[in-house]
Amino acid sequence: MPELRQDPVTGCWVIVAKERSKRPYDFIQRQSNSAQICPFEYGNESMTPPETLAFRPDGLPADSPDWIVRVVPNKFAAFTPENFEETSDGLFKSRKAYGAHEVVIHGPDHNLNLATYPVAQTVEVLKAYKMRYNFHKSQPYGKYIQIIINHGKEAGASLEHSHSQIFAMPLIPQLPKSQLEGAADYYVKTGRCVYCDMIESEIDNGTRFIDRTENFIVFVPYAAKLPFETWILPVHHRPRFEAITDSERDELADVFRQTLRRFYNGLSNPPLNMYLHTSPPGYEGVESYHWHMTIIPKLTIAAGFELGTNMWINVTIPEQAAEFLRNVMS
Amino acid sequence: MPELRQDPVTGCWVIVAKERSKRPYDFIQRQSNSAQICPFEYGNESMTPPETLAFRPDGLPADSPDWIVRVVPNKFAAFTPENFEETSDGLFKSRKAYGAHEVVIHGPDHNLNLATYPVAQTVEVLKAYKMRYNFHKSQPYGKYIQIIINHGKEAGASLEHSHSQIFAMPLIPQLPKSQLEGAADYYVKTGRCVYCDMIESEIDNGTRFIDRTENFIVFVPYAAKLPFETWILPVHHRPRFEAITDSERDELADVFRQTLRRFYNGLSNPPLNMYLHTSPPGYEGVESYHWHMTIIPKLTIAAGFELGTNMWINVTIPEQAAEFLRNVMS
Repeated sequence: MPELRQDPVTGCWVIVAKERSKRPYDFIQRQSNSAQICPFEYGNESMTPPETLAFRPDGLPADSPDWIVRVVPNKFAAFTPENFEETSDGLFKSRKAYGAHEVVIHGPDHNLNLATYPVAQTVEVLKAYKMRYNFHKSQPYGKYIQIIINHGKEAGASLEHSHSQIFAMPLIPQLPKSQLEGAADYYVKTGRCVYCDMIESEIDNGTRFIDRTENFIVFVPYAAKLPFETWILPVHHRPRFEAITDSERDELADVFRQTLRRFYNGLSNPPLNMYLHTSPPGYEGVESYHWHMTIIPKLTIAAGFELGTNMWINVTIPEQAAEFLRNVMS
Repeated sequence: MPELRQDPVTGCWVIVAKERSKRPYDFIQRQSNSAQICPFEYGNESMTPPETLAFRPDGLPADSPDWIVRVVPNKFAAFTPENFEETSDGLFKSRKAYGAHEVVIHGPDHNLNLATYPVAQTVEVLKAYKMRYNFHKSQPYGKYIQIIINHGKEAGASLEHSHSQIFAMPLIPQLPKSQLEGAADYYVKTGRCVYCDMIESEIDNGTRFIDRTENFIVFVPYAAKLPFETWILPVHHRPRFEAITDSERDELADVFRQTLRRFYNGLSNPPLNMYLHTSPPGYEGVESYHWHMTIIPKLTIAAGFELGTNMWINVTIPEQAAEFLRNVMS
């Protein structure tokens, strides 16, 4: 099973995913098998582990076709729900990678994705996010839950069929940890949520603004780390994604789809990544943290500089990216 | 000119490189121009900015052919040596990206690289690293200097001709900062350098060991973040790369080349990145930090999970990667 290893210098944990493991020789021939049978289509349900959630007409059995959205454990999981165990060999600490890793299949059609399905499909996907988030939150490993989308091979999708992934784990990773800490510091200094202040500034300023509805706003952040990085946030202070109401969820589905359509139409269906940051399950500083989605098309390559420094070089000016996306017919 | 923008939440700085800037429409057609004239070959010296260093036979003028190794400012610089200036607009802080960004051209032959040139060429490259490091160290912007290699298009090289890059900047980025802090904490707790302790453990343990000479050791680190991540370190405590002696440098050239040959031969000349971490110029905790080179072949794609968490999933077990590299005929 996969394990977590702690970097003896920085203290950060790395996942060594033996289940997904490639043996050294696997890399020598770097070719893809494109003619494989897709395990995410109707009739191929037995190719995945048994589903953990599916929306389908009443009366139909689990793991049968005719579902609308289907959630299954990842066959090559980075986290697995077995018991936690820490081992230490002097400098070197490891833990079993205790947690869960699931796939949310966005719909049955191999040729559609969240930019091209009708919006009703996005509503079902968000419903699945919330239900599975709440499930993992209740589990002993549920200290942090990361929902992501990898769309397109160049953005790391190993299967073409449109899907999200949910990772639930027993620790808070470096980036969300430093966001929580930074936001908490800001709150101590100002008595305000830094995301609420950013939203206010972006509305006033307007140069990085893309879209808004009553309850959601879309903009390119001031210090975007990559070209066309785009955030979707609730306009009003909302620390927890899983507390979203049904009407907010339906509104989000529409804003999320429209934003994906800006990328799809403006940048010719680019490979892209999405990740959702929200207050972790046990987190108490909810007055300072504000959930948000980040969408980043995969247009450039993070290379030696980024790997060696964790500092990003963005080759597109955020204001120009926003202007471009604002003007795309979505 | 390029600017640094501070993330209002994490405090990390991002480089917005207007000089390298791609306008939104540049991304729509994602094709490469492979038939371009190479600015790094003999006779094309005028295609680069004037050189800042070159090794060539005595008596030949600057920016003429027949050089052995040549260093020039990057034409699309991420940092430029103009005056520092900070601006602040409420939440949003920016600075000019004050510093330097240079290219070290490894040699004149378009078809060779540091794995295939004779070792004498690597000696000259390391000599250039040291001289330029010392130059930038003496400049007012020289708070941190990052030397890297991007080899191959998939590893982010925009030009095919073998080269390194040197970035000099007025601040210490997140990753080296957290390494310096982690190593200093370890020193406070144990009175020892964590890298020295790692070296001892890797020699004892042997499963991640690849190679060693009198003064250098090569191994896959315990918590390698990516497949085949490999470190080269001085065996004895050495905080500063730029303090390397001539005989250590010649020995390093040989070890570095042999290591690159393991990748070249074992993984069919993979795209790869190298970065060199060393105590920053003004850093005083030199008893706790130990310079090292990291080499990572580009075999996988960092996707939504890594972007959203800054946590890595390594799909190759470090001990298997080391065994493979140990047994390659270099």
